[in-house]
Amino acid sequence: MDLSIDRAGIAQAYGLIQPHIRKTPLIEVDGAEFGQGAFHSILKLELLQHAGSFKARGAFANLLLRAVPAAGVVAASGGNHGVAVAYAAMRLGKLARIFVPSIVSAAKAARIREFGAELVVVTGTRYDDALAASQEWARESGALQVHAFDQRETLLGQGTVGMEFSQQAPELDTLLVAVGGGGLIAGVAAWFEGRVRVIGVEPEAAPTLTRALAAGRPVEAEMGGIAADSLATRQVGALMFPIAQRYVERVILVPDEAIEAAQQLLWKSLRIVTEPGGAAASAALLFGHYQPAPRERVGVLVCGGNTTAVDFGKRAASV
Amino acid sequence: MDLSIDRAGIAQAYGLIQPHIRKTPLIEVDGAEFGQGAFHSILKLELLQHAGSFKARGAFANLLLRAVPAAGVVAASGGNHGVAVAYAAMRLGKLARIFVPSIVSAAKAARIREFGAELVVVTGTRYDDALAASQEWARESGALQVHAFDQRETLLGQGTVGMEFSQQAPELDTLLVAVGGGGLIAGVAAWFEGRVRVIGVEPEAAPTLTRALAAGRPVEAEMGGIAADSLATRQVGALMFPIAQRYVERVILVPDEAIEAAQQLLWKSLRIVTEPGGAAASAALLFGHYQPAPRERVGVLVCGGNTTAVDFGKRAASV
Repeated sequence: MDLSIDRAGIAQAYGLIQPHIRKTPLIEVDGAEFGQGAFHSILKLELLQHAGSFKARGAFANLLLRAVPAAGVVAASGGNHGVAVAYAAMRLGKLARIFVPSIVSAAKAARIREFGAELVVVTGTRYDDALAASQEWARESGALQVHAFDQRETLLGQGTVGMEFSQQAPELDTLLVAVGGGGLIAGVAAWFEGRVRVIGVEPEAAPTLTRALAAGRPVEAEMGGIAADSLATRQVGALMFPIAQRYVERVILVPDEAIEAAQQLLWKSLRIVTEPGGAAASAALLFGHYQPAPRERVGVLVCGGNTTAVDFGKRAASV
Repeated sequence: MDLSIDRAGIAQAYGLIQPHIRKTPLIEVDGAEFGQGAFHSILKLELLQHAGSFKARGAFANLLLRAVPAAGVVAASGGNHGVAVAYAAMRLGKLARIFVPSIVSAAKAARIREFGAELVVVTGTRYDDALAASQEWARESGALQVHAFDQRETLLGQGTVGMEFSQQAPELDTLLVAVGGGGLIAGVAAWFEGRVRVIGVEPEAAPTLTRALAAGRPVEAEMGGIAADSLATRQVGALMFPIAQRYVERVILVPDEAIEAAQQLLWKSLRIVTEPGGAAASAALLFGHYQPAPRERVGVLVCGGNTTAVDFGKRAASV
C-alpha cells in the first residue's frame, strides 16, 4: 500500500479526477479595490467547484484511486464533505450512504439526498457520533469509508488544487489556505514542497493546527465560532501533521468578526458569495492579519460557497 | 471626430482601460452539470467586474477616450450604468453627477453615493425623466454626458469584453449576449465581425432588438418583466442598430420564468449570483431556447451580479 503523499501521487490523482471536476478560475485583485491596505493577490475561486467546495476533489480521488465495492461508499459529515461524496458517487454511478449528526440542517440534508445518497441521521449531535456510526456500517456492509481529511486519497485530491493553481499562476510567492481538519492545506503544501510559502489561516475559535504545531502533535482544540461547521474539527489529522510541520510556514489566527467582514467585502466589491470557512483566508489578507511585502504575489484559496445567504425567492431586486 | 466602432477602436479602448478593469475569468460547464440538456459552454464571469457588471468598461472608456472637463461627468441611470460611472469617476479622480428617477431603490442610491458621486433624484419616475434632467445639467455646467448605450466610447468599452473573451477562448463558435439598449452586444459584435456567431437574448417582456430588427429601425418596445431594470429600454440605440443588422445573427426571446430559473440554477450548481439581466443569456442555453449543434463551443456572457438576493446579515448558515 502506497502511503506517500507527494507530487507524483497528486499528479496521478489529478489525471484521474480531471474529467470530473471544474478547473476553477483565478481573478487578480488588489487591496485598493476593497478599500483595504496595499496588497496584490490572486484568488482561486474554488468555491465554484462542484458541490460548492474543494471537497469534490478529495471525494473523486477516493472513488477513483481506491476500489469501490458493490456496497458503495460511506462518509460521515453534515457539511461540505458529505455533499461532495454524495455528488461524486452520483456522477460515478456508485451507492453512497452519508451519516450526519442529528443537528444537520434541513437544507444540508436535502442537498445530500438530492445527489441520490442515502442519508442516515444518527442520534448523537456531534460529528464523532456520525463518524462512529459510519465506521460501524462500513464494517458491516463492506462499504468504502471516505474520511473527510485523514485519508491519503483525500489529501491527494485536495492537493490537486495546489497543482492546478501552480499551473495557472506559476509565479506565486505565498499561498493562504484555511485550515479545519487540515486536508486541504496538507495536500497543497505537499504539492508545493516549500516552493511557495504556504500559510494556514484558522479562526481564533477553532485553532486546530495552531495547537497541534505548538504541542508537536495533533491535540484537541476549541471547536467554536462562525466557521465551526467547516473549519472546526476536534483535531487535525494524523496524516496531515508531518506535512504541516515540514511545509506550512506558519498559521495565522483571525477573529470571527474579520471572517464575517470578509464575506461582506467579497460580495460587495467582487460579487462572490463565500461561506465563513471560504472567506477565512481572504480575511487574513483583507484585514492585515497577513501583511505581504511590497510586490509579493499572494495567492488565496477561496475554498467554499455553501451558504444560505442567497435567496432569490423573494424576487430579489437589483442593487 | 472618429465615429467608427471597429476592432481598432476597441483595441485602443482596451489598452486605455485595462489598468482599471478586472480581467474577468472563464469557467467551462456542460449541460449535465445543471441537469439540463447536452451542451458545452464557456461562461465569462463578467459579473465579477468592478461595480458588478460590464458597464464599468464603457464608463472607463468614456472617461479615458474623451476629454473630461473640470465640471466632471454626468449620467442618467438608476442602475448598473450609474453605479459604473460613479465608480470610474472615483477611481480617476473626476467629479460625477448621477441623475436617477424618483423610483430608485435606497440600495442603488446608497451605492452611487458610496462611490463619491453626487446623486440627483429627479421628480419623474422614468429613465427618460432622469436623462432629460442630466442633459440639461450637461448643457448648463459643461459636464461630459456619458450615455448608457448610445455613445461611441460606451460601445468601444463594452466591446472590450469580446476582445478579452476571444483572447481567453480563441475557439468559440457562438456567443450568447443579453440585450437591453444594445451597447454590449454591438460592441462585442463589432469586435468579432462575424468571426463568431453573436446571438442576442432578450426577455419576452422587453424585446427592443427583436422589434427593431423586424421594423428595420429602432422602434419602441414593451419595457416590462423581471429584468426590466437592466434590459428594458424604450428602444435600442441608433449607433448600435447598423452593427446589429450586420453582425448579430439573430435574437432569442426568453420568458421571465426561464430567467428566474437560470438564476436559481446558476447559484445552485455553480455558486454564482446573477441579477436577472445577468442570467438571461444563460437561460437561453439552459432551457433549450438556444440549441447548439453537437460539439459547438458556446460562449455565454454572464454580465451582471447586482442583486439584493444576498444577505449575510442574518448570520447565514452553511448549506
